Amino acid sequence: VVSKAVKNPATRIAEPEDGPVHHCGVAGAWSPVSANLPRSLFFMLFSLQHRGQESAGLAWTDPASGAIEHEKGLGMVRETLGSFLERDVPARAAIGHVRYSTAGGSGLRNAQPRVVECNKGRIALAHNGNISNSDALRAELAADGAIFQSSSDTELILHLMTRSRKSDPSEVVREAFSRLEGSYSVVMLWNDELWAIRDPDGFRPLYLATDGGLRLAASETCALLFDGPRPYREIAPGEAWSIGPSGERSFALGGRERSGARCAFELIYFARPDSEVFGRSVHEARTALGAALAEDDGVPGDVVVPVPDSGNIAAMGYARRSGIPFDFGLCRNHYAGRSFIMPDPAKRELAVRMKLMPVRSVVSGKRVVLVDDSLVRGTTSKIIVRLLREAGAREVHLRLSSPEIHEPCYYGIDIPTREELISNRMSPAEIAAEVGADSVRFLPLARLDECLGGKGGHCKACFDGRYPATRGEGN
Amino acid sequence: VVSKAVKNPATRIAEPEDGPVHHCGVAGAWSPVSANLPRSLFFMLFSLQHRGQESAGLAWTDPASGAIEHEKGLGMVRETLGSFLERDVPARAAIGHVRYSTAGGSGLRNAQPRVVECNKGRIALAHNGNISNSDALRAELAADGAIFQSSSDTELILHLMTRSRKSDPSEVVREAFSRLEGSYSVVMLWNDELWAIRDPDGFRPLYLATDGGLRLAASETCALLFDGPRPYREIAPGEAWSIGPSGERSFALGGRERSGARCAFELIYFARPDSEVFGRSVHEARTALGAALAEDDGVPGDVVVPVPDSGNIAAMGYARRSGIPFDFGLCRNHYAGRSFIMPDPAKRELAVRMKLMPVRSVVSGKRVVLVDDSLVRGTTSKIIVRLLREAGAREVHLRLSSPEIHEPCYYGIDIPTREELISNRMSPAEIAAEVGADSVRFLPLARLDECLGGKGGHCKACFDGRYPATRGEGN
Amino acid sequence: VVSKAVKNPATRIAEPEDGPVHHCGVAGAWSPVSANLPRSLFFMLFSLQHRGQESAGLAWTDPASGAIEHEKGLGMVRETLGSFLERDVPARAAIGHVRYSTAGGSGLRNAQPRVVECNKGRIALAHNGNISNSDALRAELAADGAIFQSSSDTELILHLMTRSRKSDPSEVVREAFSRLEGSYSVVMLWNDELWAIRDPDGFRPLYLATDGGLRLAASETCALLFDGPRPYREIAPGEAWSIGPSGERSFALGGRERSGARCAFELIYFARPDSEVFGRSVHEARTALGAALAEDDGVPGDVVVPVPDSGNIAAMGYARRSGIPFDFGLCRNHYAGRSFIMPDPAKRELAVRMKLMPVRSVVSGKRVVLVDDSLVRGTTSKIIVRLLREAGAREVHLRLSSPEIHEPCYYGIDIPTREELISNRMSPAEIAAEVGADSVRFLPLARLDECLGGKGGHCKACFDGRYPATRGEGN
Amino acid sequence: VVSKAVKNPATRIAEPEDGPVHHCGVAGAWSPVSANLPRSLFFMLFSLQHRGQESAGLAWTDPASGAIEHEKGLGMVRETLGSFLERDVPARAAIGHVRYSTAGGSGLRNAQPRVVECNKGRIALAHNGNISNSDALRAELAADGAIFQSSSDTELILHLMTRSRKSDPSEVVREAFSRLEGSYSVVMLWNDELWAIRDPDGFRPLYLATDGGLRLAASETCALLFDGPRPYREIAPGEAWSIGPSGERSFALGGRERSGARCAFELIYFARPDSEVFGRSVHEARTALGAALAEDDGVPGDVVVPVPDSGNIAAMGYARRSGIPFDFGLCRNHYAGRSFIMPDPAKRELAVRMKLMPVRSVVSGKRVVLVDDSLVRGTTSKIIVRLLREAGAREVHLRLSSPEIHEPCYYGIDIPTREELISNRMSPAEIAAEVGADSVRFLPLARLDECLGGKGGHCKACFDGRYPATRGEGN
Repeated sequence: VVSKAVKNPATRIAEPEDGPVHHCGVAGAWSPVSANLPRSLFFMLFSLQHRGQESAGLAWTDPASGAIEHEKGLGMVRETLGSFLERDVPARAAIGHVRYSTAGGSGLRNAQPRVVECNKGRIALAHNGNISNSDALRAELAADGAIFQSSSDTELILHLMTRSRKSDPSEVVREAFSRLEGSYSVVMLWNDELWAIRDPDGFRPLYLATDGGLRLAASETCALLFDGPRPYREIAPGEAWSIGPSGERSFALGGRERSGARCAFELIYFARPDSEVFGRSVHEARTALGAALAEDDGVPGDVVVPVPDSGNIAAMGYARRSGIPFDFGLCRNHYAGRSFIMPDPAKRELAVRMKLMPVRSVVSGKRVVLVDDSLVRGTTSKIIVRLLREAGAREVHLRLSSPEIHEPCYYGIDIPTREELISNRMSPAEIAAEVGADSVRFLPLARLDECLGGKGGHCKACFDGRYPATRGEGN
Repeated sequence: VVSKAVKNPATRIAEPEDGPVHHCGVAGAWSPVSANLPRSLFFMLFSLQHRGQESAGLAWTDPASGAIEHEKGLGMVRETLGSFLERDVPARAAIGHVRYSTAGGSGLRNAQPRVVECNKGRIALAHNGNISNSDALRAELAADGAIFQSSSDTELILHLMTRSRKSDPSEVVREAFSRLEGSYSVVMLWNDELWAIRDPDGFRPLYLATDGGLRLAASETCALLFDGPRPYREIAPGEAWSIGPSGERSFALGGRERSGARCAFELIYFARPDSEVFGRSVHEARTALGAALAEDDGVPGDVVVPVPDSGNIAAMGYARRSGIPFDFGLCRNHYAGRSFIMPDPAKRELAVRMKLMPVRSVVSGKRVVLVDDSLVRGTTSKIIVRLLREAGAREVHLRLSSPEIHEPCYYGIDIPTREELISNRMSPAEIAAEVGADSVRFLPLARLDECLGGKGGHCKACFDGRYPATRGEGN
Repeated sequence: VVSKAVKNPATRIAEPEDGPVHHCGVAGAWSPVSANLPRSLFFMLFSLQHRGQESAGLAWTDPASGAIEHEKGLGMVRETLGSFLERDVPARAAIGHVRYSTAGGSGLRNAQPRVVECNKGRIALAHNGNISNSDALRAELAADGAIFQSSSDTELILHLMTRSRKSDPSEVVREAFSRLEGSYSVVMLWNDELWAIRDPDGFRPLYLATDGGLRLAASETCALLFDGPRPYREIAPGEAWSIGPSGERSFALGGRERSGARCAFELIYFARPDSEVFGRSVHEARTALGAALAEDDGVPGDVVVPVPDSGNIAAMGYARRSGIPFDFGLCRNHYAGRSFIMPDPAKRELAVRMKLMPVRSVVSGKRVVLVDDSLVRGTTSKIIVRLLREAGAREVHLRLSSPEIHEPCYYGIDIPTREELISNRMSPAEIAAEVGADSVRFLPLARLDECLGGKGGHCKACFDGRYPATRGEGN
Repeated sequence: VVSKAVKNPATRIAEPEDGPVHHCGVAGAWSPVSANLPRSLFFMLFSLQHRGQESAGLAWTDPASGAIEHEKGLGMVRETLGSFLERDVPARAAIGHVRYSTAGGSGLRNAQPRVVECNKGRIALAHNGNISNSDALRAELAADGAIFQSSSDTELILHLMTRSRKSDPSEVVREAFSRLEGSYSVVMLWNDELWAIRDPDGFRPLYLATDGGLRLAASETCALLFDGPRPYREIAPGEAWSIGPSGERSFALGGRERSGARCAFELIYFARPDSEVFGRSVHEARTALGAALAEDDGVPGDVVVPVPDSGNIAAMGYARRSGIPFDFGLCRNHYAGRSFIMPDPAKRELAVRMKLMPVRSVVSGKRVVLVDDSLVRGTTSKIIVRLLREAGAREVHLRLSSPEIHEPCYYGIDIPTREELISNRMSPAEIAAEVGADSVRFLPLARLDECLGGKGGHCKACFDGRYPATRGEGN
């Protein structure tokens, strides 16, 4: 529990190429009359499963006692919360969380939501993001008598709220959240109120659906529509929204002027294609990325093959713009959901083969344009290129629908150290030699903004090192 | 165990639209020197997981004692056999099986391989298929003193072998297998020999790879290439192949003349796209089916959308031939691997939504050509059409890359009763009205043969009712 | 499955001192009207749990379909069959089994009852004992075409029944069971009949209760009275009893004259003290054993201390006869139900300490008479003596309520090899030196018969080597 | 978590007759050099398993990083901490806890030890007892900004320590613990120090062993001797002891004069017979209770039968003093470790029968003196008396080795409400009629002190209502 919380930057990380490295997801629901909201939360969290597989949790306010109940566990949503499919649990307010294990410590003690009782009443809180000034705040709060039972930022927010001398809830929130730097999308139960709060830079997405009296909040719109279409809007950067028996409110957290710092990788890789995030269709953004990647390329390919499924849409965008036919040249084994942990590191290739196999009839004798979303360490790409060559590909041209990654992220994404990032060690030509490709090309950084579209103002620090906010004490 | 085995035809079945209804897979390995073949089998079975998720099992001949060891369990390959990833189990011969639960009874007692000791020595046997004259054989064998401890056909084959008075193993096999009608692809350990045997009609695929002294056998080629490319060939219909310390042999089971009865659905839906079955690339066959479906269609679509993943390749084939752009208009949640069992049947729609969600930016305002592999009951298609319309699709035209299904299968595929088959109750126009589509069109039966290609001679009985072999006692 | 079945004698064995080494238990129930007999069986098997902890199983005839259903699993009754506490499963006939893993192979494939379908209909069979001529029978049956799917004797009995040409069920049973040598107490479902059959030597106990129309059969009477008192009688040696829709029957299996060979260890150690076996109260027999042990002893003790719980009653009998006060000088940790498997064999002492701890106030400064039921290898006794001395015992005199064990058992008890038996290597004086006791004394063999009482005719072969029946092929 | 913590008095409780209702146990270890202390803690907690079966936990200071690691889980010690048997985890300090679920809420969130990071460094704390002024302290601390994440008293102690302005650890402890009322035996890791602290009234036992440089602390001495004998002493009421790199210390918490309030039930029922608690051998105390109970009794019995195992020793004491023979007239099924939860409350009798069965040969025709430790609701006793009568007992005289229970406990024992206590509703004669006994007799309250012996000063409030300390806010 109390092992030193290494917050900035994340250092031990799986590679994006190796599977999802999403950074948590949140969801909440409020109903004017008692309803089985925990069951709705189950479906919403199931829709957000791609944002975190380490643990999942639910909290809800019991309408009879006013107590906040919760259940959480290590594992997938279906395993940990599956009982809610068959239970009838009435509630007027509920929140939930899926967690991806990041720096700072894993395990059940860091699972969310965190539920407490304090001078502000009963509170349950879950958040998605990374508080970049957490070390300083933690030290300050500890000196003032705060006890930390986990290494998560959630406790820190709760301690800040508890220390507020304000009596109006809005004032408490404003005072507490004004201390936070970094990224957060928060859902909170405060007695029988539901709150949704987003950091002023807008790093992580957060959406709100209104459906008669019902309110649903979630990291991505796919979770809001789990049982049918309904209108939704983005919770604005710096907005604090709440609803409760005494009404619905929204106010700005305030603070310094911000120009927006929406995480580019949410659109490039994290979010589900059927979601809207940052006011932009994820599918459209990825199609645009693929098209932009094709524009000045001119590589003489016979077939465009995606690395499934992360490269699917960009590959299709590339194929359309380039006129080179799209085809499924790699077959993904859908039962390889969770990675194998191979005892022998030399068996890494076998693990990739269990997930992806080349389709000989598609690639044999062909000049293959292989499209993936990003390149981090390059180890998996090297194996995939080998698979394609084994299946007879004449040429393999690796295309990435994001620019070269050079810098760590301080706002919630797991990226290896600078030394491990292949783009810090090699030029595209050197990378091509390393992974065995005939050529490697990245999306030009200059094209990124137009592809991400939406309301603009994205954080591209991992590409260009221009951090929109503090990076933690050490920096 | 001893509940009456209802063999012909299968009656309680999940719908192909609802997920995989593959009918088991087999694999085997033989090495001239002791090697960790059980671990290889693990990877081979993992590659065949799509053919059966109910149970999985392994058997191998211990090189020291000559005993046949086995492990099997209910569940996925990774859960039941995962320990083999970390164990070092030497063997010269091994076989394995993944089982899809079919009529005749589920549960661990029907898991394969089945391992016995008898007057022929030690035998382990696993099979994929359906013995259509099993009721008659079972009655005959029981009258002769045979004891049945399961309702699977595997025991029946073993009893036939035991009863042979021949001493030469090939004669025993020939005598025993000559009694069988129906479909089977069998792998067998006979003391320290590995056998692979395929029914004379060739209903189910079976392949053999040769790699130096190593031999691998499996239902699909994807399993043969689990750790790299190697040459392979089809085990011919009616071929019995074996290898052991005394050498390698192959002979024809003999019997009446056959014209071939390869299951069309293996190419249409069951096999993995990166496999070759019946001498034909699955990916090529599906591309051809999609193209043929497009040929005389002329529907004015704006976008071709597959039902992922079963419709992916045919949709791409359709798009290429028709010139209508292909796009991913339905997003599949990859964590919805196993179906939800919803307590309330009215919640069926919710279960589909957990698997598939429409991508508004792709389908809104568009005339959508929706491509799936087949139509059985039509219930899931109805929900999918509704999802697309909710997301703004202007028109939805449902296209199926197989002909209309009219008849049950007696050779191993789970198909509902005639009454439940929507094509027995409605014309395409009526189906369109029922599922809410603007039009519905099936692959013309006349185009099937050219698409399936390969060596020809396919079983299309579920489409046209022309059964190539006996259908069971009642017929 | 097909590992060589080492039947005679059992060689790998836990030590009686280390915990229960009972050899299986059986139970059955029949009701003239449908009742939740599987649930009754759960309670009966739970009462017989001390006879076997490796696996447990139930079978019952479904009154609607006539099919025999079954469930079995590895583990304790509560774990494997606990669901029956809450299920309502109607049946008119049911049987069950608890298994202690013995030579011949463990694992689920040897769990009982075994359920088959054959020319005699549907049969489920469970047995307690050891067929001593099984190797010869197995070879004969295999030559005749029988298939063996396990190494248990149960299959063998079923094959014998199947091979009978008789049509009358009693004749079938008589013919099949006349071939068996060794020990067995069998319960069997034959379609909708319940059978209970005991070997002609009467090695293992078997009892039958009559309660209106209800019939209950079990290895020990404690299981018959699970829900209240009811009258019972012993199934006689060589008796075959059955009940079914067509009535109740009993007949003698017949064969050569026998003088009775009831296993002495059932009374000395195996059976529960509240049971009657062989017409004798177990509690009375153990009290008599303790008293006889005291009679000529004359050791000057201050306190009689049992090794709990196996030595409790004999210690009390000893204390009463000798006049030396009884006291609980060893405290048993009731949570140490299953033995620890200590990775380091040197940690064996720690495992004993987790089960048994000395009570200083009872033994300090005292001359302790330590009473246990038997001495096999002597390793645990050595540790217990050390514990008592550590707690201040001035003298420790070890007394065993059974004679010295010299020979293996061929009828179902796990006894180490001759070489491992401490009484084959040392005199009592030498044993005392070895285990650190001041003296060691065994029950005189001559006193055994009077203590066991009941109807006489006990098997004492492990003490005197006089085997009442065949010992297996090798002998 | 935030459900209202009902502290005074405990209301939902299992009945002592129904099995252990011990109230938690604690253990700690310190070594001058790194050693596998977590493994030692496993054995110590296993020895204290009878004090709590709901959850178990371990914490230890990592010697390399200084971090405090922990593992805890719901279930028995073997299930939750069994991995420590095989792991080598070096530590110089470690603590552990077994928890019995009491009022205030169960579940993993209340499992101990609780591990935090605060202005005093890293602390892990576990306690056994009940803080009677916790509601007032909790309110005060919450008003001051404390956050509560559980309903356990442990957090409360930690908050008090954090609020201390002292810098000397002893002063911090003195200041914090001076605020506590009620019962506690605490073990604590404070960075790399081990602490053991006992409340000034001495309600719960706490012992300390010294073995060279090694220190072991535990609720009962049986845990100190888990691997062999070593010297020990009682931690005195009001003593705070600690050891760390800078040395060993002990001081008195101070405060008002106390006369001692050792819980009588620890000796009567809770502690293990081989333990010493409060300077008194538990076995001797129970023998004395049985003897005192016999003294003026004069009931004409034929046999003294204990309710195993809680009545064993008192029954033996009774038998010795009265001269009536002791015998095991009730047989306990050792596999009935955890109670059955019978779906039908009318099946309660069946649950008792699964645990206890009468031994006919002992009780038939006899006048039975039945000895148990206490009588709470009387429901189980009623069933036991019926069992004995069914087995032929001519008379049954129920004797309890404790006085009549009239009042609830505010210091950690689960006792039903006043209304449920049978002694508040009936006289002994009426109880005899209710439970079906010929007579019922309790230990005279006046005899209790001499039997408990030791250093005197026991809490007997549940018998006489004289509470030695506050009882909570409501009183």
